[in-house]
This record gives sequence, C-alpha cells and structure tokens, in this order.
Amino acid sequence: MSKSDQEGLSRRDLLGSGITAATAAGVAGLATGGTAVLIARPETARADNDSDAHAKVAIAPGKLDEYYGFWSGGHSGEVRVLGLPSMRELMRIPVFNHCSATGWGITNESLQVLTEGLTPESREYLASIGLKTYINGDTHHPRPSYTDGAYDGRYLFINDKANSRVARIRLDVMKCDKIIQVPNAHSVHGLRLQRYPRTGYVFCNGENRAPIPNVGKLLDEPKKWSSVFSAIDGDTMQVAWQVIVSGNLDNNDADYKGRYIASTSYNAEEGTTVAEMTASDKDHIVVFNIPAIEKAIKDGKYTEINGVKVVDGRKTSTLGVTVYVPVANSPHGCNAAPDGKHLVINGKLSPTVTIFDWDKFDDVFAGKIKGEEAIVGNLEVGLGPLHTTFDGKGNAYTSLFLDSQVVKWNIGEAIRAYNGEKVNPIKQKIDVHYQVGHINATHGETKEADGKWAIALCKFSKDRFLNVGPLKPENDQLIDISGDKMVLVHDGPTFAEPHDATIVHASKLNPVEVWKKDDPFFKFAMDWAKKDGIKLGDDNKVIRDGDKVRVYMTSAAPAFGLENFRVKKGDEVTVFVTNIDDVVDLTHGFTIVDYGVAMEIGPQATSSVTFKANKPGVHYYYCQWFCHALHMEMSGQMLVEDTGV
Amino acid sequence: MSKSDQEGLSRRDLLGSGITAATAAGVAGLATGGTAVLIARPETARADNDSDAHAKVAIAPGKLDEYYGFWSGGHSGEVRVLGLPSMRELMRIPVFNHCSATGWGITNESLQVLTEGLTPESREYLASIGLKTYINGDTHHPRPSYTDGAYDGRYLFINDKANSRVARIRLDVMKCDKIIQVPNAHSVHGLRLQRYPRTGYVFCNGENRAPIPNVGKLLDEPKKWSSVFSAIDGDTMQVAWQVIVSGNLDNNDADYKGRYIASTSYNAEEGTTVAEMTASDKDHIVVFNIPAIEKAIKDGKYTEINGVKVVDGRKTSTLGVTVYVPVANSPHGCNAAPDGKHLVINGKLSPTVTIFDWDKFDDVFAGKIKGEEAIVGNLEVGLGPLHTTFDGKGNAYTSLFLDSQVVKWNIGEAIRAYNGEKVNPIKQKIDVHYQVGHINATHGETKEADGKWAIALCKFSKDRFLNVGPLKPENDQLIDISGDKMVLVHDGPTFAEPHDATIVHASKLNPVEVWKKDDPFFKFAMDWAKKDGIKLGDDNKVIRDGDKVRVYMTSAAPAFGLENFRVKKGDEVTVFVTNIDDVVDLTHGFTIVDYGVAMEIGPQATSSVTFKANKPGVHYYYCQWFCHALHMEMSGQMLVEDTGV
Repeated sequence: MSKSDQEGLSRRDLLGSGITAATAAGVAGLATGGTAVLIARPETARADNDSDAHAKVAIAPGKLDEYYGFWSGGHSGEVRVLGLPSMRELMRIPVFNHCSATGWGITNESLQVLTEGLTPESREYLASIGLKTYINGDTHHPRPSYTDGAYDGRYLFINDKANSRVARIRLDVMKCDKIIQVPNAHSVHGLRLQRYPRTGYVFCNGENRAPIPNVGKLLDEPKKWSSVFSAIDGDTMQVAWQVIVSGNLDNNDADYKGRYIASTSYNAEEGTTVAEMTASDKDHIVVFNIPAIEKAIKDGKYTEINGVKVVDGRKTSTLGVTVYVPVANSPHGCNAAPDGKHLVINGKLSPTVTIFDWDKFDDVFAGKIKGEEAIVGNLEVGLGPLHTTFDGKGNAYTSLFLDSQVVKWNIGEAIRAYNGEKVNPIKQKIDVHYQVGHINATHGETKEADGKWAIALCKFSKDRFLNVGPLKPENDQLIDISGDKMVLVHDGPTFAEPHDATIVHASKLNPVEVWKKDDPFFKFAMDWAKKDGIKLGDDNKVIRDGDKVRVYMTSAAPAFGLENFRVKKGDEVTVFVTNIDDVVDLTHGFTIVDYGVAMEIGPQATSSVTFKANKPGVHYYYCQWFCHALHMEMSGQMLVEDTGV
Repeated sequence: MSKSDQEGLSRRDLLGSGITAATAAGVAGLATGGTAVLIARPETARADNDSDAHAKVAIAPGKLDEYYGFWSGGHSGEVRVLGLPSMRELMRIPVFNHCSATGWGITNESLQVLTEGLTPESREYLASIGLKTYINGDTHHPRPSYTDGAYDGRYLFINDKANSRVARIRLDVMKCDKIIQVPNAHSVHGLRLQRYPRTGYVFCNGENRAPIPNVGKLLDEPKKWSSVFSAIDGDTMQVAWQVIVSGNLDNNDADYKGRYIASTSYNAEEGTTVAEMTASDKDHIVVFNIPAIEKAIKDGKYTEINGVKVVDGRKTSTLGVTVYVPVANSPHGCNAAPDGKHLVINGKLSPTVTIFDWDKFDDVFAGKIKGEEAIVGNLEVGLGPLHTTFDGKGNAYTSLFLDSQVVKWNIGEAIRAYNGEKVNPIKQKIDVHYQVGHINATHGETKEADGKWAIALCKFSKDRFLNVGPLKPENDQLIDISGDKMVLVHDGPTFAEPHDATIVHASKLNPVEVWKKDDPFFKFAMDWAKKDGIKLGDDNKVIRDGDKVRVYMTSAAPAFGLENFRVKKGDEVTVFVTNIDDVVDLTHGFTIVDYGVAMEIGPQATSSVTFKANKPGVHYYYCQWFCHALHMEMSGQMLVEDTGV
C-alpha cells in the first residue's frame, strides 16, 4: 500500500488550519503573482500503484470495451467518444469547432446547425467580420438524456462557455443536430438535465454577470449586470424560460423527482475582479423550484427579453421561485447522489463538502425552515474539493484539486458524523496526477450507478508522459472503484481540455451502422433535389440557374458519378454528393484541390457544399476517405473557365 | 498458432491467378458500381492472438513510453504525437486545420504561418471569398529530419494533399513554424526527405496532372497537363527547384547517399478517369538524379514558372535528370531499405514487390544498362501490396490492402529466389483489421532500424470497436516484430485518417519545457511592442492609434494584468497576452465571450489576436486553460462602447 494510501486529512494538516490558511495563501499568491501554493502543491511523488492492475485496461485486439465515455473536448470545441476501460478515443464529434476532415463548418448541412440558433446580435456581428458562424467553442459538461433517472440513449447535450451556446448530439448517428445560442446569457457554464420524468429540460447556467440586454449600455454599472439561469426544451432546442438571479452561476444539478435544480455561485459578491469575487467568507447556492417557475410563466409573471420569458428569481423577488442558501466561499461542483435524496456541494476554497437533503427544500420553499436547515452533513475532505461522484453503494468520491487526490467517503456516515456520532466517514485517499477537476463514475449520475470505474480528469500532467514541448496534455486517469479500495489503473493523456465526461454502458446505446437515405440531416439536399427534379443517388447532373450551378453526383468506390464538370469563374456552385455504397464503414470524402472544400459522406448519406468558383483552372476533386484499392484514382476535375471577369 | 498465421500465399490462391483476376475483378466492380471484391474481401475472422501479448502495451500509470510516434492526422489537417508502445495520443499539433483550443487560424502568429507561403493565386481566391487562409488540409506523410541517415530531432515535415502545401514542425516546441504552398504542383502527395548528408531537401510529389500555369487555359487538353516533382529547401522552406515529369507522381523515397530519389506513378497513361488510369498493364517509376538536376539548374537549363526554376524531366527530355523504369500497373508505396542499398516498390494491383538496387542507377543514368536491369528481385507477396517497412535485420514487412494482412519476407532471400535459387522468402503472414495502408517500423526508415515494433494503419475498423454510428474510426494496429514471429498486440482506434506515421526513439528528441521569451515565434508581438515602447511581460497597457487599439497584458494565475479594457464599436483591436508564469505545464488561455476569440499562451509565451470590436456591450475575457484553484475567477471585461455608428 502506498504511503499516500492512508485515511485522514494528513496533507491538509500540513498546511495548518484548513480553509483559512488555504484561502489566505491563495489570495496572498494572487496578490504577489505567486502561484506555487494554489496550483502546484503538493509535488506529489508518483503513486506506488498495484503493479498489475493497469493491465486490466489493456483490451485485447478485437475485444470490445464495456462502456462508452462521452468526453468534453474542452476548448477544442468537440465531443469525444471513448471506450472504457481501455480509454481509447473511438470518435471525435465536431460540434462548436470546424473540422477539416468531415467538413463541419464547411458543408451546408453543418452550417445550418451552426447558424440557425445564433442570436440576431451575433449573426450581425459575425456577418460584419465576414463569417457565418464562430470557429471556436469551449465545451464542458456532456450529458446524456434521461428517462426516469436512467440514460435512455437518445441525445447528448453539451454547453459552450466561449460563445454562450448549447448543442445536442443525436446518439443514433453520433452527430450534432442542433445548436442554440442562449439569449440574455453571457457564457454558458454549468449544464445538467432534467432526470424525471424525462429530459425534457436542459438546465444551463449563464456564468458571467453582464447587462441584459447587452448592447453597450450600463458598461460602468456592474451592480446592474445579471446572470440568468435557462431551461431549454431538449426536444425543440428552444429556450423554455429563464430566471434572473443574484450573484452568478457556476455548476448545477437536478433532483430525481423533477422538482428542483440547484446551482453554485462563486460570486455572490457580484464583483468583477478576482479580489472582489473572493472577498466574502460566504457565497451561496440557489435552488430553483421548477413547478413554481412554470406557474409564474403561466400566470404571466415574467418579462419578455430578446424573445424569452424571463422570471425574476433574485433575492429580492417575491415570486417564490428560488431560495438562496449560504455556503462557504467559492463553491464549485454540485452533484446529486443516485440515492435520489442527497445533493453534495463541493467547497473549492473550503476543504469541505456540504450535503443537502432535496426533500427538505419543500419546507424551505414553504417557509417552514431556513435554507441552512436543508443541510444534513458537512465533512472535511481535503484541500480544493471540486466535484463528487458516486458508486450507488452509499459511497462518494470527491476530487481534491489542491491536494491532487481523490477521497472516498461514505454519505451515511458523513450524515451520522454531522449529527454528532463518532464515526470517520473518510475511507481512503489516493494521489492523482495532477490537479484534478471533474470526476465521474460509471452511471454515477443515474439511479443505476454501478460502482465499477471512475475517471478523474487531471489538469496538469507534467512528468507523467514523454515531453511534448511547452504544451502538455491533460491526464484523464482511470480508477477502479469496484473493490473496497480505489486503484489507479491508467494514465490517459488528452488534448485540451476535457473538463468533464460521462460514462454509459454499451447496452444503453444502439447507433445505426449506415445512414437512412431520407434522414432529416439531409433536408437541404432533399429540398433542392425536389426543386430540381433530381433523384438523389441515381442522377448525375449539372443544373445551371443563372450564375448558380448545382452539381449532383453519386459516389461508389472507386468513382464519382461525374468524371468532371464545368463552371465559369464567379459562379456560385453547390455540389451534392450521395454515397450510394451501403457497406458498413464505407465512408467517402469529397475534396476540391486548392479550393478549401472538403466533406465526409457516410454510407447512404448526402452531403453538400456551396462555394464561389473564383479560381479558374483545372481543379481535381478526390475522395479523401480511403475506400478502395483504387482510392487514389477516385477523382475527377472541376473545370473553371476564366471568363475574364 | 492461428490458422491465419501460416506461411505462403493461400489467400491469394483462393482468387486464382493473382494480378489478372484481382485487376479484372476491380475493373468489373468499378463498371458495375460493385465494391465487394476490391474493398471488403476477405471478411477476415478476428485473429487468434497471443492472449497475453497485448498486455505489453499497457504502460503502468506514471511510466513513460519508449518511442514518440508522429502520426499524420489525415484530412483532419493536424499532426498527432503518440507514445509507443501504449499508442496513447500525447498531443495534437494543429497544422493545416483551424484549432478552437489553441487559436491556430485565429492568432496573428498562426495566421502568419498559414498565409505567408500561399501562392498569389490562392491568396487572391481566398480574399475573394472573405478568407485569409484555408481551413482544411489533408496530411499524409510525416517525416522527421535526418543527418546522415538517422533522425536528428530538428524538424518534422508533412504534406497537404488538399491544398498543395508542405509544412514544417519544430520538434523543440512541437509547433508548426512554416507552411509553403507549392507553385505549379496540383495536390502534393508523396513526401520524403533527403537522408544524406542531411535534410536538406524535402522532396514532394505533385500528384495530379494539371495545366502549368493553371489559370483557366488548356481545360480540354489533358494531354498537355503535367505533374511536377519539387525539392523544397528544408531550412528556408522555399522551393529549390522543380522537375516536370511524364505520367503522374504518387509516393517517393530517397537513397542514403544523396544521389537519387524515386517515385511511383499510377497514371503513366496520363488519363483523367479511373478507367483510363488503369488501362495499361504497365506504369512506371521515375528516378531523379539530384546532382544532375542541380547541374542543369546551374547551367541555366530551366524555365522559370511562377517564380520557380523548372527543369524538364519528361521522357522526351535530353537533360539526363530522370529515368523511367516500367513496373506493373498502378504501383503505390516506394520504400528505401535501411541497408542503404535496396528500394522496394509495392505493386498495389500487382501482388508483387519489386526490389531495385540504388547503386545500379549509376549505370542506368550512364546509359550502360536499361532501367529494368536495376531490378534485383520481384516477389509475390499477396493481394494489394501498398507499403513496406524494415527491421534492420534483413526482413521486410509489406502491407496487403486486399488481403488485410501483413507479410514478413526476407530481402536477401527474395533476391536469391529472383536469381533462381529454391528458397521461400515469405516468413509469415498475419491478419490485420482491415484494409491496411501504410506500415512503418521503429526507425525503419533510418540506418538505425531496430526491429522492435511496427504500426499497421488500417482504413476500416467495422466490428473491432464499440459502434459509434455510420462514421467508424480507423484502426492503427501495433505489431510486435521483435521476435521470429509477428504478434498483433493492440487495436488503436483513430479519427480520420492517419495515412502514415513515423516512430522515433525518445532519446532522439529533447523538447523544451517552457518557451524562451524571445522565441522567433513571437516576432509579431515583439515588433509591435518595440514600436509601442512596451516591455512584454511587464507592461499592462492600452494604446490607441486612431481606430486601432493595442492591448498589452500579462497573465499570471489566477489573474490577467488588466482587470478590464475599453474600446469603441468598430475599433480594430489587437490583444497581446504574455504568460509570465514560468511553471512547467502552466499554460493560460484567453477567450473573449461571444467574440469567437480564443488562444493558447504557453508558459513564458506571448500570443496575439486581432479583431474588429463590432459588437457593443460587456464581453468577458477568461482563461480557458485550467490553471489554478481560482481559474474560474480568472477573467476580465472588454467594454465595447456603442458609438451609434
């Protein structure tokens, strides 16, 4: 057993008096520009791990993983699908980013998804700089849809902190089909889903306080800025309603009965600088009462702002839609336990987790008890608790950012200890490497938590991998939590920056192998084909319509349906390619050389791209997805006449 | 031992008479739109692998890999760095793509790299559609620089087939520092490096035949189109010279003495359709005589086209710079053996590999012997041989696309067999999964080939991984070649589409951990700072210059040097951020909410971005690279006044 593999709070004790010392050190570090205390301490030695345990993750060639992992791609803007326990990346799903391979951000189909949900202000801004959409995003919290507290395999939702958006991914085809930019919200951070009766609502937090509307007024009056909480209808991807809050909003989570959703706020102070935001000893959580909000909307007790019904949920509101409960300074993670009863708030600057009983909020909203009376436990766990996950057997696992550890503790015992019993709820601590953020266990956010694996997403990796220069990978570590003791089994390097991940048993998903020809994803092409009298997949034809040219062609390995096509310089050309191969895994590509055009066409799919043929000459198009022994020969020529214009 | 683990040519025998049957089937499949024969046969069963061998690749937490793998990112446009044998992705290096995380394609530093080497025609075309550069690329062949036939750790070079470019990556910082679009070349495919005395030249193949110059003339005269071979100076990243060839150019490789480089051509027919390109029984390789080309340039025997000195190396040329040697139809891979003596040409549509002796080209160029007389071996290896790698112990490993196998054979014995001896050079075949393209062994392309591992990059993965919808990952398989028998040890799923990879022992590289403040990568910022009298890393200052605003700020966890800054709507704003933290792995980010601005700032680095402040209001900037316990609080506000304009 490793020296770090011991119970108790020894690391924190080294620093002295817990929260005060840590916070003071942090603020001191801040003031002097020093970073050693809060980011890099302790310089943990490599853990002495069970020397054979890691071999458990080596899945033999041809054997399948047991779980899908849905990984945030962080500021890469994408979503990643991993297999667990092997931790291999099985697929990247482009979402908020542009993707050179698939043509996400280039094809008409993807541009439809990327542009239709933009706010008018953003659309106008982007047009003014010559863009149709953003090319960056910052994803954090991928969450699969629920029916009655269990994953139902329909959708995955994810936020974009960079440009205030929320995206939906269809899990049958593993492609993003809807993106909405959330009006009135500035920077969408926390995102969790309605668990009961189903998703339903996608709850998302406007993190930063800004003027509403944000059009150049109130620049110097930050006290008049606000954060908003949004409920998006997961079926229509429209905002159902919003609630303006006091403070700001960080992470959130919903209960298992469809009544409440809670959110942390690290800026109850309503400051604009780090010093102001950490000034007070206390911040708060805010609890939203969903039926009460729906009633307020129904009763007309809202203001419509930028097309959205906005309810006042600030501390001064008398609508009874929110309650604010003070907690220690700068709370971060907000995690509902699979027992359906408990909510854990993670202290960040406080070395504690605070346990709430969801049911007690009935009495809080009824005015029978104070918010603090919904607290049923408060446990010292170590320095920098950020997030907590669960094994369904009564245990919780909390990531400790400052200690670079994961602590296992027992919920029931923590509650008994809070009630004065002499029990030690801390079961074990292990080192992780290094500076761990999110942690999530297999099905840990569902009523089917199975206590098999947990992933700890570490922000620093330093010496854990071969040196790849100044930019290091993150380190997503896999922990076996199936036994009494946690065992670290795998270091998983990943590109910037998986903030969070969820893990779904393979039995919950059943993606298609080949597209349906008339999938709604191909609506753009189907609509044009109808207008042009084209049968997609059969016809290979060029249609000229003034200076607009529509080129319809098939692809079947190793040839495109058109050996070449001819346009004039300056034409607006739309190319539709229908992949008529129906062999599993037989994806084609369509790239035009020196034209910046590239797209994926899956088996039985149709993809399209529109561009201006402003460069005269012979331009080859070719298949960039290796498809056949004669793949290299799968090409044709776009002949662009120079009309002298 | 698996049933597939047997010697001989049994799979091919099933089809009958090898090349004829395969080619006929392929062309028939083509004509009928059928794909079964050439792409999906045989439906190999999962191999019965050594059940414990795969555990060798499970590197225990905290242990380091032994090799760096430099992976083409294929049409994702990036380069990937893997660790071997664990096959974990350690880093993504954005090159031809745009990267949401690092701001590649957004920052001034990256745009400098992405734009400076564009041809005037492409620059004009891109400007006409509102772009500064392409957002896609299609990388194939990553190659580390050499000194005297061994890796020297300076640079990595890679082609872009989509937009005819070549990029250079600095291996000290693992960032791309130069990109050139190759004039006169249409679609750059094969890329290999001068091995002796050093790199030196980067040799790259213009794959597609197109008019030179390609400006809208000769659209209907494909016989007048040409492919060009280019030598780029790896130190300056300028084209040194080009050679116009007959046929087209596919893959290439250089000798170990600095005299010759050879290239395959699959289109000696000079056709424009698949049928035309595969019409003849024979294609050819072309061998370039480097000293002869240099002499022709020196003697003025070139034409300057688009600023490049172009030598005539067509079959009709009398300059003696090239020789053409007929080989079977549609050859593909071109691989120099580490013995310094042999060159292997892979048959693709022919089930053979052809072995050349580099030294014999002296006599071929001298007119003493015919090109065919440089052939010293011709071995039937199986269906669809695409590429060959080497173990430095006299053995070669050839990928068989159609058979979905790797065949191990002995070079010396193949030569003896060609000379009539009764030996069977085929040592072993193993199944790979499926449709394997490139194969490469540890240091297999250097005189230090060590025969430890080979990676086989498979194009299809079908049932090898959890189903992730219609788009499947590739399958990069790791083979242990250290013993007498090859053993498949790992299935590595990867996103579209690693065409090729090279493997370098960790001892060969020594990247820096933290940037040097005055790295030339920061020239843009250093130049502006000098003009503005700013000390980067010290000063936090806003400089207004008409409607141009330059904002200089530091970042030190958890705060930016400026708590906010103020601009007017319509200003052109340049933000320079200098990360003054000098802690290893302490990268900061800078994102502006709803502005599409995001960038990476490594420790001690300066990054900059220029944008139009066309959207009024309060816009937070924040650090998107998790850096500190107070990371969430690391933000400020850009206040954009609405001037009513």
